Amino acid sequence: MTGAIRFVSAAARRSAVAGLVLSLAVVPLMAQSPAPTTFINTLMPQPASLTEEAGDMPIRTTFIYALHGNNGNRLRQGAVRFIHHLEMYTGVQMALTPTANAASATLTIDVRSAASDAFPTPDEDESYTLDAGPQHITLSANTDIGALRGLQTLLQLAQPAGSGFVFPAVHIQDAPRFPWRGLMLDCGRHFMPLNVIYRTLDGMAAVKLNVFHWHLTEDQGFRIESRVFPRLQEMGSNGLYYTQQQVRDVITYASARGIRVVPEFDMPGHSTSWMVGYPNLGSAPGPYSVQTSFGIFDSAFDPTRNSTYQFLDAFLGEMARLFPDPYMHIGGDESNGKEWRANPHIHAFMKAHGYTTTAQLQTYFSTRVQKILGRYHKRTVGWDEILNPALPKNAVIEVWHRDQFLIEGAKEGHRELYAHPYYLDHMYTAAQVFLADPVPAEANLTPAQAKLILGGEACMWSEQISPDSVDSRIWPRAAAVAERLWSPASDRDTNDMYRRLDVESLRLDADGLDHIAAPNRGLRQLARTADDEPLMLFASTLQPVDTSIRYKQEHPTQLTSFDLLVDAVRPDPPLRQEMNQLVDRALHGDAAAASQLRSTFKAWIAAAPAVARYAMYSPRLQQASDRIGQWPKLGTAGLESLDYLAQNTPPPADWLAAQKQLLNQAAQHEELVDFAVLPAIQHLIDAASGDQPPHAQP
Amino acid sequence: MTGAIRFVSAAARRSAVAGLVLSLAVVPLMAQSPAPTTFINTLMPQPASLTEEAGDMPIRTTFIYALHGNNGNRLRQGAVRFIHHLEMYTGVQMALTPTANAASATLTIDVRSAASDAFPTPDEDESYTLDAGPQHITLSANTDIGALRGLQTLLQLAQPAGSGFVFPAVHIQDAPRFPWRGLMLDCGRHFMPLNVIYRTLDGMAAVKLNVFHWHLTEDQGFRIESRVFPRLQEMGSNGLYYTQQQVRDVITYASARGIRVVPEFDMPGHSTSWMVGYPNLGSAPGPYSVQTSFGIFDSAFDPTRNSTYQFLDAFLGEMARLFPDPYMHIGGDESNGKEWRANPHIHAFMKAHGYTTTAQLQTYFSTRVQKILGRYHKRTVGWDEILNPALPKNAVIEVWHRDQFLIEGAKEGHRELYAHPYYLDHMYTAAQVFLADPVPAEANLTPAQAKLILGGEACMWSEQISPDSVDSRIWPRAAAVAERLWSPASDRDTNDMYRRLDVESLRLDADGLDHIAAPNRGLRQLARTADDEPLMLFASTLQPVDTSIRYKQEHPTQLTSFDLLVDAVRPDPPLRQEMNQLVDRALHGDAAAASQLRSTFKAWIAAAPAVARYAMYSPRLQQASDRIGQWPKLGTAGLESLDYLAQNTPPPADWLAAQKQLLNQAAQHEELVDFAVLPAIQHLIDAASGDQPPHAQP
Repeated sequence: MTGAIRFVSAAARRSAVAGLVLSLAVVPLMAQSPAPTTFINTLMPQPASLTEEAGDMPIRTTFIYALHGNNGNRLRQGAVRFIHHLEMYTGVQMALTPTANAASATLTIDVRSAASDAFPTPDEDESYTLDAGPQHITLSANTDIGALRGLQTLLQLAQPAGSGFVFPAVHIQDAPRFPWRGLMLDCGRHFMPLNVIYRTLDGMAAVKLNVFHWHLTEDQGFRIESRVFPRLQEMGSNGLYYTQQQVRDVITYASARGIRVVPEFDMPGHSTSWMVGYPNLGSAPGPYSVQTSFGIFDSAFDPTRNSTYQFLDAFLGEMARLFPDPYMHIGGDESNGKEWRANPHIHAFMKAHGYTTTAQLQTYFSTRVQKILGRYHKRTVGWDEILNPALPKNAVIEVWHRDQFLIEGAKEGHRELYAHPYYLDHMYTAAQVFLADPVPAEANLTPAQAKLILGGEACMWSEQISPDSVDSRIWPRAAAVAERLWSPASDRDTNDMYRRLDVESLRLDADGLDHIAAPNRGLRQLARTADDEPLMLFASTLQPVDTSIRYKQEHPTQLTSFDLLVDAVRPDPPLRQEMNQLVDRALHGDAAAASQLRSTFKAWIAAAPAVARYAMYSPRLQQASDRIGQWPKLGTAGLESLDYLAQNTPPPADWLAAQKQLLNQAAQHEELVDFAVLPAIQHLIDAASGDQPPHAQP
Repeated sequence: MTGAIRFVSAAARRSAVAGLVLSLAVVPLMAQSPAPTTFINTLMPQPASLTEEAGDMPIRTTFIYALHGNNGNRLRQGAVRFIHHLEMYTGVQMALTPTANAASATLTIDVRSAASDAFPTPDEDESYTLDAGPQHITLSANTDIGALRGLQTLLQLAQPAGSGFVFPAVHIQDAPRFPWRGLMLDCGRHFMPLNVIYRTLDGMAAVKLNVFHWHLTEDQGFRIESRVFPRLQEMGSNGLYYTQQQVRDVITYASARGIRVVPEFDMPGHSTSWMVGYPNLGSAPGPYSVQTSFGIFDSAFDPTRNSTYQFLDAFLGEMARLFPDPYMHIGGDESNGKEWRANPHIHAFMKAHGYTTTAQLQTYFSTRVQKILGRYHKRTVGWDEILNPALPKNAVIEVWHRDQFLIEGAKEGHRELYAHPYYLDHMYTAAQVFLADPVPAEANLTPAQAKLILGGEACMWSEQISPDSVDSRIWPRAAAVAERLWSPASDRDTNDMYRRLDVESLRLDADGLDHIAAPNRGLRQLARTADDEPLMLFASTLQPVDTSIRYKQEHPTQLTSFDLLVDAVRPDPPLRQEMNQLVDRALHGDAAAASQLRSTFKAWIAAAPAVARYAMYSPRLQQASDRIGQWPKLGTAGLESLDYLAQNTPPPADWLAAQKQLLNQAAQHEELVDFAVLPAIQHLIDAASGDQPPHAQP
């Protein structure tokens, strides 16, 4: 039976045609397609150009590839991974190794550059061309990394057709819009085990992200082994850090996927963990101890002593040998200057140098550190606090404050990265991160200035995440960031993005990312039963509050166990977009959409008592008891709105007042979870009351 | 908010009381309990004796433990893990480290033996006493490993009560019935990555299993690094093997949990992988190559050459230094003698020694290998083929053929392990493995003979599993084996066992075992949507066919990707037991049970078209198209049976004939999946037709 998939029985086909829609939410477009040979574009990110052609190639056990030109390790391993993924996706067993007989190949991978195991560089040529015809597919690229990008595209092209899978015939010419497409993971505040790092790299490779920005040092932990200064990790962490061998393994794994690894050593602030073992580095008398709570702390390197620079020279030299990338990130953010102002010696130093602000002193410090890095042939990356007139032009500024920094910096000739709209802990929607363009047309940059904006980074700060929740905070939203940074500026259709994001989310799930599985596990634990459909339905309407709101309400620390409802709900859950679309369709007279909304609201009302019953025996779920109470009322509000709309009767004033009060309560940032479905319900109520329906927010 | 769980709102309480049962399956007893302070026994395995007492201790942030007596690493680490688990379970943050002030402790752990990091031994004292009162809990044990067992029990005692959690007051005196409670994992046929090994050890520790039997060599792969003979792993595997450092880490991890690690090096058969790099070991001219298909192969060590024993001496000596356990498993199973009979030199050797069967030659071989092991102070374990009169009495025989071997062996004075009823790949139900007693009363063994039966092992052969499906094949059924081997012989109430197994399954899920999460992921992938409730419902009625049936139908190899429906359904799914119980209750006049059955059958009928629709665009799901067609018909058969029963009308003969035909078709082992719910439906049909209702099978 292996490799030979049987046909669906005629009986099953008939009952499928008579299909009753049991499922509550929108079925992804792929599953609705009536004509299986129609090409359905589920590519993420979208390529620079794509032309559909006629026909398609069935994916059979006879599928076999040949390598033409480059035959190096990275390409060979990437091709084996491609076949493995294709097998997993289709269930069809295929040859893992290339054929030597070029004429028999169904896929030819033609890479012009010579084989090399060199680490990926910041100016890598990632372009490729894919010519997929019914008989033969050619993937051409200048580099092996370009070919890896093309293989990811080809994998995403595979689609079901009849009783099997096909590659539709297309011509794709593709190259990224921005060369720096990063994901920053904060492993300082919460250590992330290696399996998290590896699966994060898998997810990055799937959506063509190419820079893993590894935030390794924080007030709460020094997460990398130094052999020169072992007290850094030994006294500066809770025992959780990456050994140098582990770091080398991660770099190798990333390189095999065409991903650069840029480490960050945050200084002069966010540096408490350095000073636990080496208190002389600090500007206060000490002793220092590792922080377990979060916020901005006062610790800062003493910028006035030569010994500080001697230490950093030895340490950064060690790290420069470990990390092959030409860039190194030195942080530079949120140094509050308090220790500096409190230290008479430093005060005198500032006076002697004519510095009136601690920002000037930080510039002095940064400049000296950059010179050290320069001697190790490393260019500097830093958060936008490092921006100053003396900053060398080969440094890169990562903008996390305001767009204005980005525009100003580019006009002053600085290289830059866009970060703040991609802060994943702020729980922005996928549409919001997708629409945030690093080079908006209104910025009026010259082409030369625009080119200085190298790209951006999705940033995952870890105050409020654990290895169990990190995936649901990163994915699938980082795929929307990846598309913004790879695809043409004109790609701004959020509805189409969401359609493809649903498919990509499931592909990432197959790759082992835990953004669906881990929250589901959390919900089972909260319900105290695997038979937890009512709680899953409730959770599908919720999203975590913004990280700053949770901080104010709960003050979580490094010791908090993140196992409440907020940790098992997902930012921008699929139901938000689905309900917005259903409401739009219903208000344009689509009866099926109205009926589906009614079913959804009724299901909420029916499931609410079961959720309340779970909560009676689940103290952690009781934390959300007000939300549990509001949920069926939102369902009733939705149903009654649809009734008024159907009857074309204006609702009475007291009903409107009651709904207004309900939605106000439901919109409070309470119990750490927000209702993601409020815009859709508000839209319905407004429409029922005859108000101008506001557009649903992205 | 940390540590302070809020009360459920009055509104939520009211709606909970009015609760509508939306969920289809039986809610675990724990969630139904009306009086939260009532002790609900969810312990697995059951203790030797338990007495309920009055009151309970609230689990608060003030919970703190003291160590009295033993203060060694194993105990300290175990106590920290206990607190971590308790935090995860309750959401209450507690002190991780013990208090020095004994008077302030809420839990005192009193271990009489001196601290030692010695590896666990086969005659470890695992007994403990737990005195849990409202003010203070004392856990006493002779050894740190006994205390670890008691901590697992205490963890399982924690239960919700009102708005928090409590430890109910109980007195428990506990010790295992059998000293050897193993789990065998075959890492030869399919390599299992280290994360699988570690989480398997976590699961074992949770249910007090204490021997990890690591099957490391097979025809399909040599999975351990030898430094003496590196071609063993280099040529005898596909590159997937455990390094010696990794093995040491696994042994340390297991030892910290009171688990012994017994390695198996299978010989003289199942040995192809040895001979790829060292063909002179074999009895045929060679060359040999690693097998990728499964079955019994002819390769066998040449037992006539001294060089064979010299090689084994060096290799087993190396392994004896690596593995600290006093036992080593040498396999001995399924050596078919073909190579021996085909080799004239071996034939002559047999003649010279007066051997008329290859079994006699195998005894000669085994005896020499046992002597080698003896010199390294290792006692032998082997599959029951090694049983022969010359076998030294300190060897242990693992019985996988017939009960008779077990009884005979014990009467002959051999030490034994019971394995065959616990073969997890045969998809036995949890009730079946639970009821299989190594020392059944009818065996009429003397106490001294019975004592020779050391215990048993749940065996997970890996022909048809991947790292994604291994957990669902092991768990939760291995917990039922664990209870059989720990708890008193009188513990045989399968209904109560299933009630507790549901709870234990969820605890294992929280520990990171993937027996629920991985199948759910597989179903999402088959449905091609995360919105896959209909497919989950279908899958809940199914179980994998026995491994031998799948072997005949599909001939899977090491290269098969295990991603069909069979790989995403679970052996003995909870719905089987639930429906058996519902039918029993309905036939005894329980209207609520009949109503729940009707809801379930209607849900099947309603969901079937959606499943058929998934299959239209999911070629791998089409593999089960006949099952998809039969499913709603089973629902109709159930509904109509209930109708006839309600009307007290005998069904017409043609209806009965049609149901018989349907059940016959549904009972065929087709498409790799069986309906687990057939006994319940058969029972209903029989009752409707007035036949004597047969008892549902365990």
